[in-house]
This record gives sequence, structure tokens and C-alpha cells, in this order.
Amino acid sequence: MSSTVITNIATLVTNDPSLAGESPLGLVRDAAVVIDGDRVVWTGESSRAPATDDRVDAKGRAVVPGFVDSHSHLVFAGDRTEEFNARMSGRAYSAGGIRTTVAATRAATDAELEANLTRYLHEALRQGTTTFETKSGYGLTVEDEARALRIASAHTDEVTYLGAHIVAPEHTEDPAAYVALVTGEMLDACAPYARWIDVFCEKGAFDGDQARAILTAGRARGLHPRVHANQLSYGPGVQLAVELDAASADHCTHLTDADVDALAQGSTVATLLPGAEFSTRAEWPNARRLLDAGATVALSTDCNPGSSFTSSVPFCIALAVRDMGMTPDEALWSATAGGAAALRRDDVGRLAPGARADLVVLDAPSHVHLAYRPGVPLVTQVWRSGARVV
Amino acid sequence: MSSTVITNIATLVTNDPSLAGESPLGLVRDAAVVIDGDRVVWTGESSRAPATDDRVDAKGRAVVPGFVDSHSHLVFAGDRTEEFNARMSGRAYSAGGIRTTVAATRAATDAELEANLTRYLHEALRQGTTTFETKSGYGLTVEDEARALRIASAHTDEVTYLGAHIVAPEHTEDPAAYVALVTGEMLDACAPYARWIDVFCEKGAFDGDQARAILTAGRARGLHPRVHANQLSYGPGVQLAVELDAASADHCTHLTDADVDALAQGSTVATLLPGAEFSTRAEWPNARRLLDAGATVALSTDCNPGSSFTSSVPFCIALAVRDMGMTPDEALWSATAGGAAALRRDDVGRLAPGARADLVVLDAPSHVHLAYRPGVPLVTQVWRSGARVV
Ligand SMILES: [Zn+2]
Ligand SMILES: [Zn+2]
Repeated sequence: MSSTVITNIATLVTNDPSLAGESPLGLVRDAAVVIDGDRVVWTGESSRAPATDDRVDAKGRAVVPGFVDSHSHLVFAGDRTEEFNARMSGRAYSAGGIRTTVAATRAATDAELEANLTRYLHEALRQGTTTFETKSGYGLTVEDEARALRIASAHTDEVTYLGAHIVAPEHTEDPAAYVALVTGEMLDACAPYARWIDVFCEKGAFDGDQARAILTAGRARGLHPRVHANQLSYGPGVQLAVELDAASADHCTHLTDADVDALAQGSTVATLLPGAEFSTRAEWPNARRLLDAGATVALSTDCNPGSSFTSSVPFCIALAVRDMGMTPDEALWSATAGGAAALRRDDVGRLAPGARADLVVLDAPSHVHLAYRPGVPLVTQVWRSGARVV
Repeated sequence: MSSTVITNIATLVTNDPSLAGESPLGLVRDAAVVIDGDRVVWTGESSRAPATDDRVDAKGRAVVPGFVDSHSHLVFAGDRTEEFNARMSGRAYSAGGIRTTVAATRAATDAELEANLTRYLHEALRQGTTTFETKSGYGLTVEDEARALRIASAHTDEVTYLGAHIVAPEHTEDPAAYVALVTGEMLDACAPYARWIDVFCEKGAFDGDQARAILTAGRARGLHPRVHANQLSYGPGVQLAVELDAASADHCTHLTDADVDALAQGSTVATLLPGAEFSTRAEWPNARRLLDAGATVALSTDCNPGSSFTSSVPFCIALAVRDMGMTPDEALWSATAGGAAALRRDDVGRLAPGARADLVVLDAPSHVHLAYRPGVPLVTQVWRSGARVV
């Protein structure tokens, strides 16, 4: 395998804790990165870079780790444009919400679902996302959930079983029967394709006891928990996530002091999803409060056709800085190293020797431009596993 | 000259008032556009399109008029990244504000200013902006203002003389002398290169009397007025703009009922610039109030390195829908036909026979996706004056 140096980097974000000073980002100015095969083997000042086979000139641009988007819902079919349009226009619309997507997803062929998934994965890759988690949750039958996970697992290692997205339409009269299905036959069919199990713990979806039963059953089958927690209202989700050592509690919009304390004390990452608050005109989660308490915060897109149809991590960074009390450096850390922590990965989300060579070259001299230039497509090159892919 | 049909357009936005129904956009489904030379010569349903020399398949995508960005400040040099970073991080920073950019702009060579300008114009074009206004205002000497306008006029017809951006640092002890310069020698040097005259009417910049003197002097030299009005506080800017028949009052963030009435009664467009409120964490302008009163609203970027460093019209559309009470259709109308009205142009901002063939093909079946998919770069093709340029 040949080695490559990317040199003439004005600002390099390493997320290397040994280089972290005032910023958590482990910044190196006038830097270079050396890649060998699919790994980073050296980072430092350009003038000290070792000899390599190939050389790429970054021309004074900034290089950051590839974004780690630890929360998306991309195995779906159907169109909810009119529902969004009506909501934002103040018009009544007899929307089925998630059920609209469930019906369309069930009706789609495997090929349609896969084409849709790969389309959005590519779109995310072009915007700098090099690690993506995605979930089931629009099938809600044994076959449709297993199918969604099988399709997803062909495209990413970070696959989450979310049979407990909502109670399936067939079981609304008997939620306990649906929980039994999710923790029984459906789990059996899904476990081979997934790494994670997730539940939407919310009024109208699954309560704390149901969520505990679902996550515990998943854990017994080798799936590690993550939780949709405290998005629309206060509730037991966050504390349950910490109690079960979930990798992440996602949304965290409505938190009591006890919730914040639990996250700060435990090993569960608080994953914030500002695209959802943006597209539903909801209150912002308070990242500052979590950071000040000592919690680990991740930022992700929640990309899905109902409540957050953005695949843009840079957009989420800009929102986090504007409206959630994060500094530009904290927001970028959360969208890279934070996402990796939420997936319990240490090979991505950083650029240090041994890490996977996943990196983004920005059309800007500094990573700050991700917040300073909102909406502008600044991603000019994407490297994944040591190869340039964009 | 050869004719081209763009066919298989799922949603065509014409902004043709004769087609406007519930939406102001004059939507046509399953549409085609015929271009001959630099003009649109036909729009309608695909099945009825006349024969042409060439044919382009839009593959079920949406086509919208090229964006008309009627407010930017792109003749500048220097870097204010750290000022932004400190502001958003809650850190003290001894920023010079606009003066930092003035010093750097004066020190730059013509070639440096032109390279910077063309870089951002290209960036905007790639994001679908086909008509751009830009201003002087970082020179503030006779020579530096004239130089800025000369450079700008080589790249766009919509050039605005903004010698009255702030009182030049040399004249802070004697603002009247600076107003005399702006309305005298500087105006003489600048008028040949500009179409418009603008003034920043605000506490700490120019008051109502000074602004009237400046705009009146400009008008006497054939420059038509536009005004930076009511951005940071209530003030006389909007009413002065209407009184002088300015093409546009820009910002309009702090409006009294009388201001709104004046805009509704007069022919002055209210141009809203949400990028500025986004990047300074300021209160949003209320587009809904203006629209309900009957005012004409435009949406623009205000692209500049100090307070709004976005060149993305789609980003501004998404903000306007989320935070300013606009529907997705209204926001798109304001970013196209509204921008054209703010520049008193009827050849751009619409796609109807006779209009300039400036159009954008979106990677989406509907124009609603500009708000539904915030931050995602959806612009896949840009046509300007009948030629594909992106
Ligand atoms: Zn979710
Ligand atoms: Zn301005």
C-alpha cells in the first residue's frame, strides 16, 4: 500500500486530546496528515512531515475529521413534502405522520428502498459524512423490520433496530402484544443485522417500563441500547438510558436537573438533533447546560422525511452555535468525536495515528467557517478509509 | 441561435401572475420551458411544448427562476474569522468591526479585490444566484470607493455606491465633512460606475437628515436610492426610503406600525436579510406582518464578512420559513421575483416568455424542498442567459 501526505493545511483538526488546549479540537496550524493504506499514520506541522509516495496540496485549506452522523432514519419510501408544506404554511393537513411513511415503506420493493437509502448516503458523503448510523422503524412487521436492517447492513456497520418506533398500526388496541412482538419474533429476525437497539420513549409511543423491557431484551440478544429520549416532553428516557448504559440518549430537548446530572455522571452520550427542532419550530435543546455539567455531547442530523429532512452536518453545526450555546469548536467536536463516542467508536471522529483516514477538506482556511458561513457548501474533498471519494 | 426545451419538469415555478392561484409562484406541474437565445420563449405543460433544436431531460426535478440576490457587500479584503469565533464563543475580542475590513480593503491590490469578488460571485452562482447586486462601502475614500465600484461593475450591472456605510475613520470628529465628501467629490468619482446609492441609516452611522442629503445628492446624479433601514433599532430609515421612492428598504427588523403602513402604501420593497440575524443572534424581522399588510418582501443574503457571511439564498429561504412566518412559496417568491422588484427589474426573477433564461434545476421534485431540506445543496444545474453555467 502506498503512503500519501496531504500538506499545506492551514488548520488541521485532530481531536487528539494530547493536543487539546483552549480548544477541544487539538488544532495544528500549517499542518500535514500522512495516510498509509486506510489509516492515518502521522499528523503534525508540514515542515516535519516524513517522506511519502504521493503528495496532495491542500492549498491553505482546513482539514477536519469526516463527520460521524450517529442518528438517521434512511430506510424509507414515500413523500411527505405536502405535510411539511402545510405545517410551515399554517394550513390544516390530514397527515398520517410516521404512518404515512410506514405504509409507503411496506409497499416499496427492496430495490426501491435500497436506491433511496444509497441516494441519501451519497448525499451525506458529498457533505462530509464518512460514518453513518441508520435505523429501521418504518416497517413495524417482522418481515419489514428485518428487511430494512438487511438493506441497511449492506451499506453501513452502524445499524439500529427500531421496531419500537411507534406501536404498529395493527396493534394500537393492544400495545403489550406489540411489545411482545418487538421483544420476541421481531427481535429474533432483526438481531442478525443490527448492532444497536433503540426505542422511542415518549408519550404516545413507549413508556419507561415498555422501553426498559425492549432494551433489556435487545441487550440479551447482543444488541447495545440507545434511546430516543426526552424529545417532546419530560420523561423517563434519559435516566433509563443512563441506567442501562445506553451508548446515547438522543434529542434531550426537555431535561430536568436530575437528567442532566445523570448524563454528566454516566457514560451515555447526549446526542442533540437540531434539525428536528428547526423543521418543527420546536424549542432548542440546551447544549451549554449539558457541557457545563460535564456531559459528553454529540450532534447529528436525525435525517428523516417527517421531522428533519436534512443530511447536512454543517447545517447542524451552524444551528448548534447560533441557538444551542455551543462554540464553533465544541460543535465541530460533537459532530466528529462526539458522534464517534455515541457509537462507542475510537477509530473514527479523529485524525491521529491509528485512526481511519476519513477526512474532509473545506473550501476555507479554518474549521470555524462551518458556523461562520452557514448554508454554504464548503466541503470540497472527502477521503474515506484513505481513498478520495468526493 | 438555437432553441432548447427543458422537459420532464415535475414542478415549474414561473412567478407568472396570470398563473398564480393559491400560491404566488404560478406553478406548472409536468412542465417544460423553451429557451431561444438568452430568453425564455415558452412555458407550459410538457405535452404541449413546441418543437426545438435541443432537448434536455430534467428527470422529474423542479425548476425555479435563478435567485436574485439584491443585497451583498463583496468588494472587500481581510479576514474576520476570529471576530466571529469570539462573538459566538462569548469571548472578548478587540474587534475593529467594519473598520477591520476597511483597513484591509484599502491595503489590497485591485487584483486581490477582484479575485475575492469573483470567488464569491462564483460561489453564489453555484448555489443558484443568477443576478447579484453588490456594494462599495469598505473604501471610504474617493479613490477606494471608486475603485470598488469600478471592479464590481466589471462583473454585475447592479452596483451600489455605499460611501455612506460608516463615517470614514479619518472624519469621525467631523461627520458633516464626511457627508460633504460623500455627496461631493466621492459621488463625482463613483457615479459613473454605479446604478444605485445606499446609506446605512442607523444610530452611530448616519441619521435621517444626513441620509436624506446623501440620497438626494445621489438621485440628482442619476443614482436611484436604496437604504439600510431599521436594522439595529427603530429609526427614520424606512419612512425616508418610501418618501424618496427608494427601490428597497433593507433589513426592516425594527418597524413601527407606521413603518409597515408606509411600506404597504409605497412602492419601496422591504428586503429582509435573515443571514444577518442568524450570524449576530439578533431578533428576526417579521415577514408575516409585512406580507399581511400588503408590502412587497424580498429576501437576500447580505453576504459580507462581518455580520452575514453566507452566500446561500436557499439557506435564507429556510430561515424565513422557520423564523419569519413565511410559507415556503412566499419565501421562494421573495428570493426571486421579490429580489427583482427590489432591483426594479422585470427581466429576471420569473420564467415566462420574454424573461431572461436564468433558471435552477433542483435535485428534488418540488421547490418546497428548499425549506424542507435545509442546508442540503440541492442546486444541480444553473442556466444563465440561456446557457448552462453550472
Ligand atoms: Zn430519530
Ligand atoms: Zn448590508
